[in-house]
Amino acid sequence: MPIEVDVAILGGGPGGYTAAVRAAQAGRSVAIIEKDKLGGTCLHRGCIPSKALLRSAEVYATVRDAEAYGIRLAGAQDASVDWSAVMNRKDGVVAQLHKGVEALMKQNRIQVIKGAGRLTGPSIFSPRGGAIAVELEDGESETVVPRHLILATGSRPRRIEGLPYDGTNVVTSDEALSWASLPASAIIVGGGVIGIEWASMLGDFGTAVTLVETADRLLPGEDKDISTELARQLEKRGVKLLLGAKLDASSCTVSEGRVSATIGTAAGGAETLAAARMLVSVGRVGNVDNLGFENTDVKASGGFVSVNPATLQTGEPHIYAVGDVIGGVQLAHAAMHEAEVAVAHILGQPIARTPDRDVPRAIYSRPEAAAIGWTEAAAKAAGFETRAVKLPMRIFGKALVHGEPEGFAKAIADRKTGDLLGVHIVGPRATDLIAEASLAKLLDAVPWEIGRAIHPHPTLSEAMQEVMQAVSGSAAHGS
Amino acid sequence: MPIEVDVAILGGGPGGYTAAVRAAQAGRSVAIIEKDKLGGTCLHRGCIPSKALLRSAEVYATVRDAEAYGIRLAGAQDASVDWSAVMNRKDGVVAQLHKGVEALMKQNRIQVIKGAGRLTGPSIFSPRGGAIAVELEDGESETVVPRHLILATGSRPRRIEGLPYDGTNVVTSDEALSWASLPASAIIVGGGVIGIEWASMLGDFGTAVTLVETADRLLPGEDKDISTELARQLEKRGVKLLLGAKLDASSCTVSEGRVSATIGTAAGGAETLAAARMLVSVGRVGNVDNLGFENTDVKASGGFVSVNPATLQTGEPHIYAVGDVIGGVQLAHAAMHEAEVAVAHILGQPIARTPDRDVPRAIYSRPEAAAIGWTEAAAKAAGFETRAVKLPMRIFGKALVHGEPEGFAKAIADRKTGDLLGVHIVGPRATDLIAEASLAKLLDAVPWEIGRAIHPHPTLSEAMQEVMQAVSGSAAHGS
Repeated sequence: MPIEVDVAILGGGPGGYTAAVRAAQAGRSVAIIEKDKLGGTCLHRGCIPSKALLRSAEVYATVRDAEAYGIRLAGAQDASVDWSAVMNRKDGVVAQLHKGVEALMKQNRIQVIKGAGRLTGPSIFSPRGGAIAVELEDGESETVVPRHLILATGSRPRRIEGLPYDGTNVVTSDEALSWASLPASAIIVGGGVIGIEWASMLGDFGTAVTLVETADRLLPGEDKDISTELARQLEKRGVKLLLGAKLDASSCTVSEGRVSATIGTAAGGAETLAAARMLVSVGRVGNVDNLGFENTDVKASGGFVSVNPATLQTGEPHIYAVGDVIGGVQLAHAAMHEAEVAVAHILGQPIARTPDRDVPRAIYSRPEAAAIGWTEAAAKAAGFETRAVKLPMRIFGKALVHGEPEGFAKAIADRKTGDLLGVHIVGPRATDLIAEASLAKLLDAVPWEIGRAIHPHPTLSEAMQEVMQAVSGSAAHGS
Repeated sequence: MPIEVDVAILGGGPGGYTAAVRAAQAGRSVAIIEKDKLGGTCLHRGCIPSKALLRSAEVYATVRDAEAYGIRLAGAQDASVDWSAVMNRKDGVVAQLHKGVEALMKQNRIQVIKGAGRLTGPSIFSPRGGAIAVELEDGESETVVPRHLILATGSRPRRIEGLPYDGTNVVTSDEALSWASLPASAIIVGGGVIGIEWASMLGDFGTAVTLVETADRLLPGEDKDISTELARQLEKRGVKLLLGAKLDASSCTVSEGRVSATIGTAAGGAETLAAARMLVSVGRVGNVDNLGFENTDVKASGGFVSVNPATLQTGEPHIYAVGDVIGGVQLAHAAMHEAEVAVAHILGQPIARTPDRDVPRAIYSRPEAAAIGWTEAAAKAAGFETRAVKLPMRIFGKALVHGEPEGFAKAIADRKTGDLLGVHIVGPRATDLIAEASLAKLLDAVPWEIGRAIHPHPTLSEAMQEVMQAVSGSAAHGS
């Protein structure tokens, strides 16, 4: 007997479980099909475990720097990383949140089906395609026939062809999250968000890190000031950056527990690197294979499901797709937002989707970085007459109090309209501070208004206030 | 020869120096008269030094807890507070910011006059009162004749009559900030913001703290949930709280470096407390004495200058008052805002003053707390039909990742209009998170909109998003 539901969701990550909860809250019967664990990449192989490791790295850095705050350690130089304890703590955080997601499903009476789902074409169960054949964990199978289907199958790390991936010495971030030991040295391939977070974390833990990026700067999609500042901070802490450098995959070998590889350098030469491990973080591709799309009008292109960007409908109007599998900004909170948009459309109460550019972006390195909206270069290229102001964090009392006053807050406004185009921050708590800019963007607030809002003193949030005053021409403290 | 300026400011704290900068930026000639140091209480005896000490206390707590994050110390139990290093760091932070304020004055061509100022009546220099006779540091005197005067003379700790203040054993927070040693035990009198911050800080440093508060809860002006949660967290860390308890000042004695005093308890009994030190934090009174008000129509009442709340004008239309000296919310950012309001009025470009209730309030204890707007009880008493939702911090991934998941986010909305009435937060980074609510209040955003704004995952700012969704009836994760 097929399981008939109003809404079925394929994939139980942040996009999937948010969609499930929203549909259930609206009184719909909901089934969520997940072949692994509820919570998806974010909870098990992404945001949460990596942030837990970053937090341990931050604590280690604080311990090492404690003397600067007047805290004396009997043997500061003897502080050490107990890697298995670090990993256990991470696993504990993940397990607790995993329980939370499971409880959330139960609480909302969402049917969770553990197994691999695959779309079927029109059948005796359903005149239109989009029923799901589920191969259950016990080898049995089940058919789910939904009125509406939401694809939320997520993504996986992109792999570089020809690299000798072995799960330990040459890995993606998936396997690095289960490393049995902390490497003494590591080559990180790719200077995007994941590469930077790992470089920051491993660097803080004491690993000798070399980061290789093909572009001439870190995070080529972000504002250049963010790239420059993060590069400076990573280098200051001993991370070696090779920019404009390309890994020759065929040269990579693993021998006696060491990885070596040749890198084509920016200068046109070649350099051979050797390290205990290599972590490859060169983007993520959507999980679009073996899902039976060929039985339907759901199309994928370049590894991602094609959708109507406003409604998130695929080629089949009753089938939606959200999250990493549609590409764009592959972030958990983007997936959750897309889930809200898709479910609202199913419910006939459509809500506007926030443009990808106005989804806040967060990097949890030390220091943190965050951004929303246009970069200065992109805004100029798009024809805006921009006014940009950048204030150093060290002019703010709380940054000095906190003790890591590196970084800046930068705002970009449209000279003609006064509108806020973009905000870019590097510094402590940047990932939280950006939320205010996200609200401002949603409400179409102009910099002048944000600068007028009273921000408590002394806090890091004053950086937001001051930079907005400055970009609208009236900073009290800034230059 | 008298110094004639467009705007003179008496007092160089946050209210005073912000007013000076704003007036100077508008092209006015400005003189600021300060008898001590630019930066005022906030920089030298308040916000900044106390937060620097709190940061050292937090680092010490992190060192002690490092094992929980997988960081092993050779001798964790031997970690110790090097009090003079802690105080030196604090002094360094203050000195650096002090330089910053001095530079700001120079940069804006503001004349800084070091000396004690006193208002004079009508004289040969000025047909109306409000010229200032300044007694300079070198014993000379000077007269400043301004078109407009802004009083920003600040406040000082309120003293309890009859207590044997001696600068070391029985002190206010002013002197505690210069304690030559960390006390083994301390009685803190007063459970307001300052008392709580000191209890948290000293408790983290290992001092045995007893906090005495006459009200039946900490922070009687804040939402009861904040009082309860902070009390729970302080007690968990060993701070002894005596609520509904009153110090008998006459019983207080200092002998052989120990303070003892009798406390009338809530139950009607009496308890004798003894400790190395007593810190009295029972509010602050405005600096209104010996300022020559009697030569003008400037009036003070109950220790504070009386002003027109909209324009901040005193009884003399050309004389304004801002900051702690007018009472109300005695916070640096309130003073800065009042400075903006006063200067804008002088410039003939009036801006609306934010009501005291909507000035964000911040407490830098561990955990932090922050609030804006109505408390639940006050809103009910004022006749609102309230809807309040409180979400525990521990449901948010980042709170677990951070490792101190205590606390909550609470929002109160008006059932009839949907308006946001109040926000109350206890938890990590609360003092920064409240800034978003301040912007929301300024823009009259409703909870629904704040909940719709995309907040990055995983951050603590998600607590703001979720509680706003919840109070508007649609939380995904919360209850």
